[in-house]
Amino acid sequence: MPNYNIKFLPDDKEVQIEPTDTVLRAAEKAGIAVKSACGGGGSCGRCAVLVKEGEVTKGQTAKLTKEQLAQGWVLACQVKPLTDLVIDIPAESRLSQHQVLTESRGDKGLLKEAQLKDLGLAGHPLYWSVYVELTPPTLTEAFDDLSRLTTEVRRITGIDNLQLGLETLKKLASTLREGEWKATVYLAEGSGFTEIADILPGKAEDKYYGLAIDIGTTTVVVYLVDLATGEILGSKGGYNKQAKYGDDVITRIVHAVEEKDGLAELHEAVIGSLNELIDTVLKEHGVRRGQVKSVVSAGNTTMTHLFLGIQPTYIRLEPYIPTVNSVPPVRAKDLGLHVHPQAWVHSLPNIASYVGGDITSGVLVTGMAQSDQLTLLIDIGTNGEMVLGNSDWLIACSCSAGPAFEGGGIKYGMRAMHGAIERVRILPGFGVECKTIGNGKPVGICGSGLIDCIATLRDAAIIDRTGKFSSDLEISRIRDTDEGPEFVLVWANDSGIGEDITISENDIKNLIRSKGAIFAGIRVMLGMVDLPVEAIDEILIAGGFGNYLNIHDSVTIGLLPDLPTEKYKFIGNSSVKGAYLSLVSHNARRMVEEIAQKMTYLELSVGNSFLDEFVSALFLPHTDLSLFPSVHK
Amino acid sequence: MPNYNIKFLPDDKEVQIEPTDTVLRAAEKAGIAVKSACGGGGSCGRCAVLVKEGEVTKGQTAKLTKEQLAQGWVLACQVKPLTDLVIDIPAESRLSQHQVLTESRGDKGLLKEAQLKDLGLAGHPLYWSVYVELTPPTLTEAFDDLSRLTTEVRRITGIDNLQLGLETLKKLASTLREGEWKATVYLAEGSGFTEIADILPGKAEDKYYGLAIDIGTTTVVVYLVDLATGEILGSKGGYNKQAKYGDDVITRIVHAVEEKDGLAELHEAVIGSLNELIDTVLKEHGVRRGQVKSVVSAGNTTMTHLFLGIQPTYIRLEPYIPTVNSVPPVRAKDLGLHVHPQAWVHSLPNIASYVGGDITSGVLVTGMAQSDQLTLLIDIGTNGEMVLGNSDWLIACSCSAGPAFEGGGIKYGMRAMHGAIERVRILPGFGVECKTIGNGKPVGICGSGLIDCIATLRDAAIIDRTGKFSSDLEISRIRDTDEGPEFVLVWANDSGIGEDITISENDIKNLIRSKGAIFAGIRVMLGMVDLPVEAIDEILIAGGFGNYLNIHDSVTIGLLPDLPTEKYKFIGNSSVKGAYLSLVSHNARRMVEEIAQKMTYLELSVGNSFLDEFVSALFLPHTDLSLFPSVHK
Repeated sequence: MPNYNIKFLPDDKEVQIEPTDTVLRAAEKAGIAVKSACGGGGSCGRCAVLVKEGEVTKGQTAKLTKEQLAQGWVLACQVKPLTDLVIDIPAESRLSQHQVLTESRGDKGLLKEAQLKDLGLAGHPLYWSVYVELTPPTLTEAFDDLSRLTTEVRRITGIDNLQLGLETLKKLASTLREGEWKATVYLAEGSGFTEIADILPGKAEDKYYGLAIDIGTTTVVVYLVDLATGEILGSKGGYNKQAKYGDDVITRIVHAVEEKDGLAELHEAVIGSLNELIDTVLKEHGVRRGQVKSVVSAGNTTMTHLFLGIQPTYIRLEPYIPTVNSVPPVRAKDLGLHVHPQAWVHSLPNIASYVGGDITSGVLVTGMAQSDQLTLLIDIGTNGEMVLGNSDWLIACSCSAGPAFEGGGIKYGMRAMHGAIERVRILPGFGVECKTIGNGKPVGICGSGLIDCIATLRDAAIIDRTGKFSSDLEISRIRDTDEGPEFVLVWANDSGIGEDITISENDIKNLIRSKGAIFAGIRVMLGMVDLPVEAIDEILIAGGFGNYLNIHDSVTIGLLPDLPTEKYKFIGNSSVKGAYLSLVSHNARRMVEEIAQKMTYLELSVGNSFLDEFVSALFLPHTDLSLFPSVHK
Repeated sequence: MPNYNIKFLPDDKEVQIEPTDTVLRAAEKAGIAVKSACGGGGSCGRCAVLVKEGEVTKGQTAKLTKEQLAQGWVLACQVKPLTDLVIDIPAESRLSQHQVLTESRGDKGLLKEAQLKDLGLAGHPLYWSVYVELTPPTLTEAFDDLSRLTTEVRRITGIDNLQLGLETLKKLASTLREGEWKATVYLAEGSGFTEIADILPGKAEDKYYGLAIDIGTTTVVVYLVDLATGEILGSKGGYNKQAKYGDDVITRIVHAVEEKDGLAELHEAVIGSLNELIDTVLKEHGVRRGQVKSVVSAGNTTMTHLFLGIQPTYIRLEPYIPTVNSVPPVRAKDLGLHVHPQAWVHSLPNIASYVGGDITSGVLVTGMAQSDQLTLLIDIGTNGEMVLGNSDWLIACSCSAGPAFEGGGIKYGMRAMHGAIERVRILPGFGVECKTIGNGKPVGICGSGLIDCIATLRDAAIIDRTGKFSSDLEISRIRDTDEGPEFVLVWANDSGIGEDITISENDIKNLIRSKGAIFAGIRVMLGMVDLPVEAIDEILIAGGFGNYLNIHDSVTIGLLPDLPTEKYKFIGNSSVKGAYLSLVSHNARRMVEEIAQKMTYLELSVGNSFLDEFVSALFLPHTDLSLFPSVHK
């Protein structure tokens, strides 16, 4: 078979591919990350590219307009070369490095180091050192070297189940004598035991480090931590390269299950994403891979499975069973992480298929499981994961919010990247003022922008309580299309994409379904313990999306409960922070397992109460206006 | 540098070596095992070879006669080629496959399977399977697969600390569903935990096997065991290839410490020796390597260190400290054994540098640690290792008997191989009748033959109580030499080596020192607990040498206590039998650790009591004749 030469513009990169490969595959080969929300299924239309020269096969054309087709636009995932090609990939079709949340808007809801001790969570890191001075052996006190060492380590640390590997055993005798029976012993928390990971003669001053990792469906974050001091030396955030196989966990699972090598591709993608960040942060701080001795990761259940290379098949199929919730630590070399090959990698425990280690991590770091206050923790994304409880009990649930909050299923929806509309103001005479991220020309609307937009449209009575455009208004911004009515936010002249940016009734309907699911979930949890909304002392908003959320807007549309603003706290990426806490304190690491054991998972698809609540929540803000007194007023 | 061609006769094998290599190295390269008791030091004289053609460098000539030197004999370890060579290696200089003890003369002193239960030692093997039937998950009972499995395995086995590796985790979900929630779970005893080593769908009928291994300084023995039934399918014995680096543990340690790559050579030699036996026994029984899932080895402390690849340096230097007594299990792949790479290899615990896992293994399998009877266990070799005790207490000691019992330090001494004199009878008129192993022409005298010889010479009053030849006798068999008087056992005409086979006063003196050390050790142990010799209910003789020992002879020369013959039992290779017991019962495996903990090690070099006893024992049978009433009579 002949190979074809594919040249990409404006990058000016060329690759050779076989006639059976798609243009998307060619782009991948060229190292260009192209959007692919549907996982190459030809339905999302995000991988649109322009064929400048050459011919391609025919394929799906979803979301491409007649004009675009006439100009030579194709979906990269659908077409294969018939000749050599020159392809232009526009900025809109590329995965850009968007703002990854390594720092948060606030962390008022999170534990401070000073509090750890009070909560019994202070303790040594998962890798740490103890200095020992041993009594030298004599003819009458002739214990073997290992007993001599472990007896003293046990005395100092109180740890009974000490293990050690053959490599450490091999160097034990010479090390103890080289240090004249003084030695620095490095201990690592493994799976149900503590390992003597290394031993150096005398008082060793070697530095050793750990990584706290958050594995999000969209982004991954790595903290580099000095384990001797607990100091976070640096953090790096980036895309999860799995995105090219689909935007959400479901498309990823489908890819893993249905594609040959799909699981390996997803595993390698996330490991590759992490390794890039690890390489960078290590280089910046002059740390060698071999000095990184412990890793704690937190991610949702699917991400955790893919990180470990475990097939996530049954997460997606009723009754939704993960292979593993409480994950045993594994060696870094078995995952291919760029750290010490023998480093233990701890994955924080999942609760169920759709409440993962990122949530237990969040519960840990908020301290809600040690608090008398009734706390609601919400992490909103494609799924809304929520935990309600206090030191006595914890309930968790997950509701499928759909992709609307992340810009999916919305015609001009996009992630919170440069040019995304994040604030909308209706001016007198129905003018519209849009503020965008980075103040660039508007190219779409992100989740928080969408919430603001709908709250604003509702405030201005442009839409009614059901989300429909008011039939009384006759303004040019509201117009009918084949797909129903829409409202023009930005005229083509002002937009960065050369066309009008609009919001349609369908978009609004999608968002109402999303917010309705979240609110219904909150109501069902409260119903289980027979408490009113007012009983909640504190609402903690976690995650990347939450970071950009406007509370007033969210209450206005009925996404969040109508409680005083001071009860709301933004805690940012609590997943990586809980991973960090677990890394620097074995007590916290143990506590997160206890939290996972203690948490009751509420399966919303069982029984009718969720469905009833969901239907009631499909209004702006809700059927029952008494639940939203401030909005009603 | 030119390479020289070395041809070996009668093998007709040729190899090329560099001028810096010795002829011994060349023989090794040609795969010919040459004796080398001193480890290539040029002192033992066992590697004598005849240079038929070519020239070699000069070197030590220890033990070579003037005639031999004139004929062209050299020590292979001492000379390097100056030209191409043709070398004749006589049978006497070769390590021959001598009788390796896989079966013993008796096992009356050993535990029977029926007794195990009474002693609390019955239990599952170190690798075994349990069959589980799990309740399928539902939406309301949605535990993850791993919890579902471990809960049931815990319920069935009572084992709390269950672990499993990533590979098993990866196949868990599909296996459980393939077997419709019925599965066979394979459990392996690791280091302080039980590992779910594998899982198969439904009721699996896979066979799985284990190995019990004895690693002796001279020989190694392997039992192949069907772990489902406990049946010993076959056993193989062979040489420990380390022998080419020296006969005893001290020369091996010197080689490990002083030679570049010495440790690696010794480690590879023992692993290679074992792998040959393993390959053979597996082939004979149609077992694949991957089916061998667990290994238990027992050996003396030095052998255990070398087996694991741990430097034995400090075993030899005062205060004689091993790196490890209670050895953590290691993976087979880390040792290079030809079994399943993930199989755990358990090494039975040592007590001290000169009382090793072979002895604790013996104590286990004799049941002496569970018995009310006072038992003395003796394993005689270069070292005499002894354990005295009962269910309340155990004392162990080791005395350096020297190499006399294994034929070392004796002019015509040799191991118990074909042609070795094992019985000597003095005929009327001082004729001598010698019985040899295999009834071949006599070529030397083995340890048990030497004891018989000395007992016989003493009975016939040819030697006196100090071991000197009677000055009253004037017979042609007694003659003076430069090295003192000697007694001709076999005239050159009748010998297989073309020269007289003699026993000298020096030989006798060496043997008296050896037997004196053993007896003194026994006396010191008894002294510690203030008991007379008669208090011993049972004396168990273990090991290859013990197997050939004549009790009457041994008592006559004062090697063993003067107790009724019925108190003596031969238990053969108790080391491999204890390894076998530990392999097929985890309770026995645990018990051997308890035995090791319980045992008090008596360092004979501390204080004067051993020295006093030793001096008193340097007579035939002893200074104090009241200790040997039957001999005295």
